[in-house]
Amino acid sequence: MSKTNPGNFFEDFQVGQVIEHATPRTVTEGDRAAYGSLYPTRFALPSSAAFAASVGLEQHPVEELIGFHIAFGKTVPDVSLNAVANLGYAECRFHQPVVPGDTLSTRSEVIGLKQNSNGRSGVVYVRSTATNQRGEVVIDWARWVMVHKRVSTGSGPLRSDPEGTAAPETVIPELAKAVDAKNLIVPKGLDFSSYDFTAAGEPHRLADYEVGEKIDHVDGVTLTASEHQQATRLWQNTAKVHFNVEARPDGRNLVYGGHIISLARALSFNGLANAQLVAAINAGAHTSPAFAGDTVYAWSEVLDRTVLDSGETDAAGVGALRLRLVATKGRDESMTLRGEDGKYAPGVLLDLDYWTLIPA
Amino acid sequence: MSKTNPGNFFEDFQVGQVIEHATPRTVTEGDRAAYGSLYPTRFALPSSAAFAASVGLEQHPVEELIGFHIAFGKTVPDVSLNAVANLGYAECRFHQPVVPGDTLSTRSEVIGLKQNSNGRSGVVYVRSTATNQRGEVVIDWARWVMVHKRVSTGSGPLRSDPEGTAAPETVIPELAKAVDAKNLIVPKGLDFSSYDFTAAGEPHRLADYEVGEKIDHVDGVTLTASEHQQATRLWQNTAKVHFNVEARPDGRNLVYGGHIISLARALSFNGLANAQLVAAINAGAHTSPAFAGDTVYAWSEVLDRTVLDSGETDAAGVGALRLRLVATKGRDESMTLRGEDGKYAPGVLLDLDYWTLIPA
Amino acid sequence: MSKTNPGNFFEDFQVGQVIEHATPRTVTEGDRAAYGSLYPTRFALPSSAAFAASVGLEQHPVEELIGFHIAFGKTVPDVSLNAVANLGYAECRFHQPVVPGDTLSTRSEVIGLKQNSNGRSGVVYVRSTATNQRGEVVIDWARWVMVHKRVSTGSGPLRSDPEGTAAPETVIPELAKAVDAKNLIVPKGLDFSSYDFTAAGEPHRLADYEVGEKIDHVDGVTLTASEHQQATRLWQNTAKVHFNVEARPDGRNLVYGGHIISLARALSFNGLANAQLVAAINAGAHTSPAFAGDTVYAWSEVLDRTVLDSGETDAAGVGALRLRLVATKGRDESMTLRGEDGKYAPGVLLDLDYWTLIPA
Repeated sequence: MSKTNPGNFFEDFQVGQVIEHATPRTVTEGDRAAYGSLYPTRFALPSSAAFAASVGLEQHPVEELIGFHIAFGKTVPDVSLNAVANLGYAECRFHQPVVPGDTLSTRSEVIGLKQNSNGRSGVVYVRSTATNQRGEVVIDWARWVMVHKRVSTGSGPLRSDPEGTAAPETVIPELAKAVDAKNLIVPKGLDFSSYDFTAAGEPHRLADYEVGEKIDHVDGVTLTASEHQQATRLWQNTAKVHFNVEARPDGRNLVYGGHIISLARALSFNGLANAQLVAAINAGAHTSPAFAGDTVYAWSEVLDRTVLDSGETDAAGVGALRLRLVATKGRDESMTLRGEDGKYAPGVLLDLDYWTLIPA
Repeated sequence: MSKTNPGNFFEDFQVGQVIEHATPRTVTEGDRAAYGSLYPTRFALPSSAAFAASVGLEQHPVEELIGFHIAFGKTVPDVSLNAVANLGYAECRFHQPVVPGDTLSTRSEVIGLKQNSNGRSGVVYVRSTATNQRGEVVIDWARWVMVHKRVSTGSGPLRSDPEGTAAPETVIPELAKAVDAKNLIVPKGLDFSSYDFTAAGEPHRLADYEVGEKIDHVDGVTLTASEHQQATRLWQNTAKVHFNVEARPDGRNLVYGGHIISLARALSFNGLANAQLVAAINAGAHTSPAFAGDTVYAWSEVLDRTVLDSGETDAAGVGALRLRLVATKGRDESMTLRGEDGKYAPGVLLDLDYWTLIPA
Repeated sequence: MSKTNPGNFFEDFQVGQVIEHATPRTVTEGDRAAYGSLYPTRFALPSSAAFAASVGLEQHPVEELIGFHIAFGKTVPDVSLNAVANLGYAECRFHQPVVPGDTLSTRSEVIGLKQNSNGRSGVVYVRSTATNQRGEVVIDWARWVMVHKRVSTGSGPLRSDPEGTAAPETVIPELAKAVDAKNLIVPKGLDFSSYDFTAAGEPHRLADYEVGEKIDHVDGVTLTASEHQQATRLWQNTAKVHFNVEARPDGRNLVYGGHIISLARALSFNGLANAQLVAAINAGAHTSPAFAGDTVYAWSEVLDRTVLDSGETDAAGVGALRLRLVATKGRDESMTLRGEDGKYAPGVLLDLDYWTLIPA
């Protein structure tokens, strides 16, 4: 029907195009509780208003991933409703904490296009920016997805291209492998100089983590059908494969990748309790699908660490810890990311590279 | 035991009787988040405090159906705990938006009675009114249910009537087929004259909908056991068949009809994104039971449309769109309501006739 | 790995030791909604801000069990992560209502130790105290758990004790069988003298309950996998057996005992609607495990009743009703707690002894 939104196909995107995504969304204390019922999160800062105040924050932020999932969800109807695959993220920065009462809106600009040689799909690169009700940037990130061409939908052989749409000029944006530590943004007022390690749950500060160190987060959580759907709905993410068993040949709902990110981040508390805030996401790959019944574990690898210069950032005692967060189906105490063939080991669900803020 | 509430039976009702229902209930931001985790709702007005302010509302309302489910739930222990079937609704009007902090209470008056010829049950008609903490009417509606007689409970043959209760005089109230558009109530201050169609997600305004037009809302959602139970509990609805597998011979929990209404309304966003508020429910029939595992789709038919006279209603740019909202088990792209025999088509779960407010 | 928390073993506890538990937690309106979606609670006071104000409370408390579960959950990583069994509670008092915005922290003192004769485990007694952001005591309680010795973990034969740890001196604290009614704390301002029995849902006041009276709460709720996990996570309770099917040989997640307490308390509304507040927990035993698919019912027995002296407690019209709350798997209309052998009847899941506040 003409009034419903079929989503965009590869042919619908042009480099430079700006899309204002629908459905501004106000974050509330209800989201904090819902998040806490879905993920076993125990980071003291988003858990406790008193703790947040004790580290200099005027208001009580929700977890950064709440903001990220909401901001990301807005882009789905326009960018990835007809996606074959979500290929990657880059240059995601959290510009300021999201607090209850904030209303988030998202805008995307198409920054790259590359039609696949099969002529049936192509890669779309977008840079998305979430702003709050004051028009301030809250989160921005780049993302690239493989999107069907309109003519190629369906599973049959390639149909003729009725409009004879030519492939667009290939434009591949330059994206940083990782956000440079000097570009990380420390929330206004954040001061870890009188940080309460007992309340936070662990004694480890920045200097206690060695680059190359791996941490097995030990705990596992078994996925259920309704939990991942509740999460995905909460972020107003409309991708059909998460909600509708009739939308997939195997009759199983695919768990939203962001659900695995949040679950792994929550599990990482055990060993990384002081990595209180997420400052940036450098890269992320959803390497394998997850389903209800799978039991998810996580391990982390320390990739980098640095003390943030308080002169520039106005932060006191704040360090940045760059981590690889790996979610696995079934526990892998060997913490093996890739097999000998260089491919991801079979149980790996998520490989996320991100920056956290931690007492220096 | 004498201290527990067995619910009322048909013999317990008299025309003119007023029942003050128990359990006043305060609505919170937690309810908004819970609703958003249970239904894929994306209407901009209840989603965004900023959007609500931009259309002239002083506070940020929750979805009208949150208020309706709560107000309705209060009547269950007194009116329909021993119901055989929920037969219909009529004349439901939303008098003012419900905002977090509002406390809802419900009162019902018995407006009709008709004993069935089998002598084992009868139809009870009630008019229910929900008020807030200031005593203002928030929602009112009429409803009729078939209720067991006390003597006829159980599945065996008709037992003798020990009290020899005579059938009451039959009183059938006159109820309007639909709320007249001129009786619709527009929330104070609502002003669609500078409505942001981009933020709302679709460009269609009142004039873009033709009477008789049908809209297939495309998306489907598979029901899970815990989600409908969580919803039903949230509204403090106590009907046993929704929670207790031992209360039904087939060992399956029946999905609360209101869950299907909310789900279908949320799905209708895709094609009706600007039908921001529910102003009235004219009629509703739950035509078939739904269970966990069913995948629910929805389609709508435009029944009527009218521009509301701003002189009378103090509304600017507000139109009213009357819709039939049909939920189906499995997608029916043919959008067939009834078979050749005039009966509802097999997959139809819900046939709801309601008024929405939309930019004129 | 050295950075993760393996929990304490029996050898790690000494009498007099004080443990400051991690993760302060702010209670919000989101918790009230989440609780309402998980339990069929209808007590008017926590349901309605207007009702709470009408009985003299300045703010709108959440259910006492929300505070209890949160405060209790904080102790799990330090006290009972390696527990064989949760043996009992005693002397739990609710010192003041918890309201949204309160941040709870918990501290425990070890008050007793007794190594088991098998040398593989021992009983640890702790007294735990939850305080709010102003340092005021909110809840305190004693609890004893059987905890593995480090050397005995695993299911194989007893391994040698490498450190040759001797059994500690046995110290068994004296704990009251029940909190004395004169030590119950009535919330500041609570005044039941103009209590609205209609809004509360039942007419029964203190004097209507006879010691020895039993009440069958009639209704049953079937447990689902995701609901008990959502609850347990909400309280940041980290016990693995509730979340991870791989953590148990039978591949089934054990339902958190506190979930059964909250469910039974909610079911007890039907017959005890005016027992609005929980003032103390005298004792509690989780007598049998519960799993998804079980249908839970509840019955109560009146153990004691007393009018609280308003001179001492500043309470008007407040009575205290001491109840035994029994949760069962499957309905037991005979309300049999124990078999002829003195052991708990097979279907009994929970035997809880607690004090409530009710209009006198």
